Amino acid sequence: MSAVSSSLIGNAVFAQSGGPTTVINSSMCGAVLEAMKFPKLFKTLYGAKNGILGVLQEELFDFRKENPADLKALRTTPAAAAGSCRYKVKTEADYARIVGVFQAHNIRYFFYAGGNDSMDTADKVARLARDKNYEMSVVGIPKTIDNDLACTDHCPGFGSVAKYNATMVMESGYDTEALYTTDTTTVQEVMGRNAGWIAGSCGLAHRIEEDAPHLIYVPEIHVSLNTMAAQIREVLARLGRCVIVVCEGCKNEKGQYLAEIGGDFGKDAFGHAQLGGAGEFVANFIEKEIGVKARRNKPGTLQRNGMHWASRTDADEAFRCGREAVRQAAQGTSGCMVTLLRKSNKPYKCVMGLARLSDVANGESLLPRDFMDESGTHISRKFREYLEPLVKGEVKVRMGPDGLPQYARLKRKLVAKKCAEWKK
Amino acid sequence: MSAVSSSLIGNAVFAQSGGPTTVINSSMCGAVLEAMKFPKLFKTLYGAKNGILGVLQEELFDFRKENPADLKALRTTPAAAAGSCRYKVKTEADYARIVGVFQAHNIRYFFYAGGNDSMDTADKVARLARDKNYEMSVVGIPKTIDNDLACTDHCPGFGSVAKYNATMVMESGYDTEALYTTDTTTVQEVMGRNAGWIAGSCGLAHRIEEDAPHLIYVPEIHVSLNTMAAQIREVLARLGRCVIVVCEGCKNEKGQYLAEIGGDFGKDAFGHAQLGGAGEFVANFIEKEIGVKARRNKPGTLQRNGMHWASRTDADEAFRCGREAVRQAAQGTSGCMVTLLRKSNKPYKCVMGLARLSDVANGESLLPRDFMDESGTHISRKFREYLEPLVKGEVKVRMGPDGLPQYARLKRKLVAKKCAEWKK
Repeated sequence: MSAVSSSLIGNAVFAQSGGPTTVINSSMCGAVLEAMKFPKLFKTLYGAKNGILGVLQEELFDFRKENPADLKALRTTPAAAAGSCRYKVKTEADYARIVGVFQAHNIRYFFYAGGNDSMDTADKVARLARDKNYEMSVVGIPKTIDNDLACTDHCPGFGSVAKYNATMVMESGYDTEALYTTDTTTVQEVMGRNAGWIAGSCGLAHRIEEDAPHLIYVPEIHVSLNTMAAQIREVLARLGRCVIVVCEGCKNEKGQYLAEIGGDFGKDAFGHAQLGGAGEFVANFIEKEIGVKARRNKPGTLQRNGMHWASRTDADEAFRCGREAVRQAAQGTSGCMVTLLRKSNKPYKCVMGLARLSDVANGESLLPRDFMDESGTHISRKFREYLEPLVKGEVKVRMGPDGLPQYARLKRKLVAKKCAEWKK
Repeated sequence: MSAVSSSLIGNAVFAQSGGPTTVINSSMCGAVLEAMKFPKLFKTLYGAKNGILGVLQEELFDFRKENPADLKALRTTPAAAAGSCRYKVKTEADYARIVGVFQAHNIRYFFYAGGNDSMDTADKVARLARDKNYEMSVVGIPKTIDNDLACTDHCPGFGSVAKYNATMVMESGYDTEALYTTDTTTVQEVMGRNAGWIAGSCGLAHRIEEDAPHLIYVPEIHVSLNTMAAQIREVLARLGRCVIVVCEGCKNEKGQYLAEIGGDFGKDAFGHAQLGGAGEFVANFIEKEIGVKARRNKPGTLQRNGMHWASRTDADEAFRCGREAVRQAAQGTSGCMVTLLRKSNKPYKCVMGLARLSDVANGESLLPRDFMDESGTHISRKFREYLEPLVKGEVKVRMGPDGLPQYARLKRKLVAKKCAEWKK
């Protein structure tokens, strides 16, 4: 964490990084609207098209040239309206280029919403600028559906994906219960390569024994196929149905990703490995080994963009995080990311904090073992208490005259370039 | 269509059949609450557990023994709270058994919510009862997400699945637009074995060229893989991304289901046919033939249970259809299904009608060719005007203290049996 002059005058750039979320635009909305309140400090408010790629390629647009109604509507628009990317900055030349573009456009404030890779980038940009005696403030805004960022109680984006996935598994649970008069299973694959936060959050829907999901598999708890088969058979014997949530990053007892296993159950009749993710693997395994029907539900990218069923807590916190980043920068803060500090659960109270970018960059928050119960296939009371406040409240989306949501799309008219072309 | 005495006194049974929908419980709610208003006519109000199977197995429960709050909450509970089934009544013995169970319980009113197979069953039950001089009224309640029932403008269940799928493809369209900085595609597989109503309805999200979906494939319009590849390449060249809706029942130019093709693109490197549905097939085809990334989104059973994002028009019409069925029966109507007759679009006006069960049973409503545009991959203005009123309005669901919906579950305590055991 470092400080810059609190009277530093210059332009600002806002960028979005990594996988879109339901509420990353809400953060951008909070940041941009707040910056507009300090016209003496923040001059031109640039957006970078497609995150850091937009900086590298000098593709910048001016937020003040956007329709004010669209800017406001970002608060209820999913995905990433400025554009995002998965580009990982690695070379010294790239970092120098970034600072060079900032200098060319007199950008003194860099607001970056993203996960730990993005905070690493932001940290290195801040350090390089300091080395070059280019005074600027770099503030990170937490964003990830995966909820795996260190130094923060939770991440904007997580509450909404939790609410949406849990609701979907609840609803398809009623379907399984209603229709199938012989033993059947439904497998819902949810996102999460390393962390089981999302998969676990579906457990909120399991209020009583009858309720889906009946089994949850998270990457942190490795499970053998034999154990899995026994657990599924036990639920089938008890309820005649079994709704299973499988995290895409689930692993067997040897630590191999289920999605990549070439074992007996991952092969077709000719011994060739089958394609498909962890959910498809488990569904095939159930049909071949247990011999009952397995329905496949894979919300895929739908789950991280479900603004129609977002958590209001999440959307509001995302907005506040963006706003806080700008307030901090206006006070001279740099080199840190805004965090969420939970003060109490009942009533739920959460305040803004700060963490060093480097601490966030080097950390990873996995699902604590005691957030699952002993069996490892259901959530514990502790996780339930953690989750409930995060999924609460609904967001009223703007509706079009055709009966569907009316989300915003920015014009993103690029400003004139000042630098030589970027050599990738 | 036939008439029974309008002062016929006896018990009633309500049953649900086929795939669950978001609003079939709303129909049951409308029917049961209406029947409670005529206590002199309708004595015991039975529910059949799991549709016609519940009648055959004499598994009946008493709606008046349920919690009144739960009955009311059915209006906003997805799936099929009485239980559904896919059992197809075929034998004379089964039909005799059904009428026998009705006689044993003095059931004089049979309300059956379902699709054309269910209306066929209801029709045959009505005929057999008449042949046996057992006076009873049989009234059908339309239900199917597929929207393929004859004699009705549209079917309760369709508007909600249309709204939900169209919203999901809109949202994942923003995701594709936001994140992917190199050519990419997203494939959303939706339900519909024979009819493209659901796939087509996603087209409502495509307001302008930028908007997803960029291509829609419906079963009624067969498409060769060469044509499909050319269409996808054209969109990629124009927009750099392509969001594709594939109906599960899509067929190639030879009339083969894509999900079952064993052609070059359906085989793995060793020439073995691959598993997976039409969406998986198209995604694999894109990755192998066109060479760009294909994301797979498969809402599966989630799409037919999305009460959190149901169409209010649909939920209300479903309720009215159930209520109308009971009103018709109370007036002596039998042998028919309630239908929806659209009177005007602006303002939207839809009234209740009636059709013979046999006419519904023997018909099937496929997507008219002029509901798609010339290319066959986008919807026409005509289809858009048809769709808009059906998806309008949101339903306020009851929320639990944990931030998730609170749906109802019936106790379904079975009444004493009076018949010998059913011999299947």
